[in-house]
Amino acid sequence: MVVQKYGGSSVADPDRIRNVARRIAKKVQEGYKVVTVVSAMGKTTDSLISLAKSVSSKPDERELDMLLTTGEQASCALVAMALKDLGVNAISLNAFQVKILTTKNHNNARILDISTKKLKDYLDIYDVLVITGFQGITEDEHLTTLGRGGSDTSAVALAAKLRCDCEIYSDVAGVYTCDPKLYPETKKLKYVTYDDMLEMAATGAKVLHSRSVEIAKKYNVRVYCGSSFNDEEGTWVVDRIPEWLEEPLVTGVSLDKNQVKVSIMDLPNDAKVVTDIFKRVAEKGINVDMISLVKNGTSTHVSFTVVPERLDKIEELLNETLADYGAKYHFYGKFSKITVVGTGMRSHYGVASKLLEVLSEHGIEPELITTSEIKISVLVPENVAEELVKSICKAFDL
Amino acid sequence: MVVQKYGGSSVADPDRIRNVARRIAKKVQEGYKVVTVVSAMGKTTDSLISLAKSVSSKPDERELDMLLTTGEQASCALVAMALKDLGVNAISLNAFQVKILTTKNHNNARILDISTKKLKDYLDIYDVLVITGFQGITEDEHLTTLGRGGSDTSAVALAAKLRCDCEIYSDVAGVYTCDPKLYPETKKLKYVTYDDMLEMAATGAKVLHSRSVEIAKKYNVRVYCGSSFNDEEGTWVVDRIPEWLEEPLVTGVSLDKNQVKVSIMDLPNDAKVVTDIFKRVAEKGINVDMISLVKNGTSTHVSFTVVPERLDKIEELLNETLADYGAKYHFYGKFSKITVVGTGMRSHYGVASKLLEVLSEHGIEPELITTSEIKISVLVPENVAEELVKSICKAFDL
Repeated sequence: MVVQKYGGSSVADPDRIRNVARRIAKKVQEGYKVVTVVSAMGKTTDSLISLAKSVSSKPDERELDMLLTTGEQASCALVAMALKDLGVNAISLNAFQVKILTTKNHNNARILDISTKKLKDYLDIYDVLVITGFQGITEDEHLTTLGRGGSDTSAVALAAKLRCDCEIYSDVAGVYTCDPKLYPETKKLKYVTYDDMLEMAATGAKVLHSRSVEIAKKYNVRVYCGSSFNDEEGTWVVDRIPEWLEEPLVTGVSLDKNQVKVSIMDLPNDAKVVTDIFKRVAEKGINVDMISLVKNGTSTHVSFTVVPERLDKIEELLNETLADYGAKYHFYGKFSKITVVGTGMRSHYGVASKLLEVLSEHGIEPELITTSEIKISVLVPENVAEELVKSICKAFDL
Repeated sequence: MVVQKYGGSSVADPDRIRNVARRIAKKVQEGYKVVTVVSAMGKTTDSLISLAKSVSSKPDERELDMLLTTGEQASCALVAMALKDLGVNAISLNAFQVKILTTKNHNNARILDISTKKLKDYLDIYDVLVITGFQGITEDEHLTTLGRGGSDTSAVALAAKLRCDCEIYSDVAGVYTCDPKLYPETKKLKYVTYDDMLEMAATGAKVLHSRSVEIAKKYNVRVYCGSSFNDEEGTWVVDRIPEWLEEPLVTGVSLDKNQVKVSIMDLPNDAKVVTDIFKRVAEKGINVDMISLVKNGTSTHVSFTVVPERLDKIEELLNETLADYGAKYHFYGKFSKITVVGTGMRSHYGVASKLLEVLSEHGIEPELITTSEIKISVLVPENVAEELVKSICKAFDL
């Protein structure tokens, strides 16, 4: 048994749908029962969102899910048709039919359960189940969607339920140490740990949605990332790198462009004040990143990064809040965030110093630095960021 | 309580969807609970069928239904969004959610039942239910579709279940005595009986799907046909014309183009032979119309009409069959079938003779004549058919 997920670009047109069907049929010939999860064709989801916005300036979330879920149902039906043409005993199934139970958060629901009984009943009859990704139903039978990248989550959750491997196919054949567009000499990873993958997914690598990696980690599902367009070897996302492979110091480098630094100067030295500011920021639904705090004898300085789209809200909030404290704020940017990820850092020193050495060779002092056990992020001017990524890749032999 | 059905052209784009929402909202303001049945947007169903055919030369019927049902779900979601924007307490519901139970005949299923409990539960909470037309589910939870015009059937079935009137809105404001494209002076009918409507629906008038009229007749649902684009008065389809209105002799005239006459000559005078031929025709799934049989002392001659697309199959079949009997066949055409419909014929003489009189004024002898209690059809040359329809309309004061 195996779960295979095919992304939107893999089923973007009739030719590609037939290609996906041939790949699945091959797996069936090898003796597998295949549970296939399919995304909506190409840019269908984006088109449906535009359509909704042309009907309503703020589409009702419940109804938007009712609309969006049609995308996956259509592509599943088409893949099942193509499979049946190849003589494969296949059936398409939507969220109702396999009872993919989720929370009630429309547009961003979380999977609560999937009916193993339903799956097993269908698998007794069919060799291939083609299941709608990205969607579920609530206990009250309302349709929900899982948010962007939700089809990855559907696939890994199904694999967790069925206790089998999960293969994620897209137009990228695996996980690279760095975006090949930034660093053409980038290497493909044979294995990557859940932890490294989580950091890389969160910091810009587009191969796997982070929630799917969280579920894979929780249920120890081995995830294979490969290309649906060729048979190039892909990447396994696993609990730990096999022992016969030396764990690399650094697994990958990622780049997040379009960051603005917000600096707040001369706050009183009072923990309540900083807490208050971040509480208000969170209440406005603004995601802040790279928080850095420096304290001297008389005052506290705080910096953090946000995406420029949120600046209006931040400005409004800071104007309200800071007047009470006599503090000032400034916006700087735009900058780029470079993140170096590697579970290997846990047991090795010198990653930070090596990274800063590369920056200083380019005459760059980072605007902000944040670290975790397995990653280091630096904020640098946008215009030198891509050049720096190349040098970092070379320095860490990626 | 009222059921309102809006066809594909009424929800073809965001503007029209908002227009439909305004019409429904008005009905809610008048104090109604509204159950709305919506078709897929514009030509969506046709596009989905083309898409299926570009993936598979003979799309699996079960999977085709899975694909087609997405069309109505999308338009329902959009109409519900537009209604919520107007402050109407509305919800979209698909076949799963209201348990529209059908037979297992994919692509051409029949409604078996609709859960009145589900409907009432939702109507307790919401003022408007926007329900997917054209689709249902089987007992095993497979999605089905009801065949062309199935949304009309969905609407009338819902009205039957809820014991209320059914309003069918399209781009035509009611039922006319004749297609206005053929006879611009045509009159709109204020009332038409189920029986006349059935004959007119079956012989080419496109306002209402015949199955929906059958259900309306069976459960005595009053059906109103109107335009979704203006407030022009439409037509009521009812059990009998109100007594204060004089029942017309002839209710309407319709035209079916593109008919081929098949004549089989010199068959033996044996009922088994004719039965055998029509049995074989039926087994090939060929619909024949206007069957006419003439017998003389030594042999039997049979004529009937088919659409030209079926000629290949008919030819193959007749070559196989007729050799045994030493009979010959010929194809003639193409012709057009003109049908004059009117429940009033039951109690009046002279309709047939008046009709033939009009034909003979044009120097036309009909190729075939068939009659029923409430209609007469004549097969005439295609090139004079439209002219004849005009003269017939004048003669019967339509």
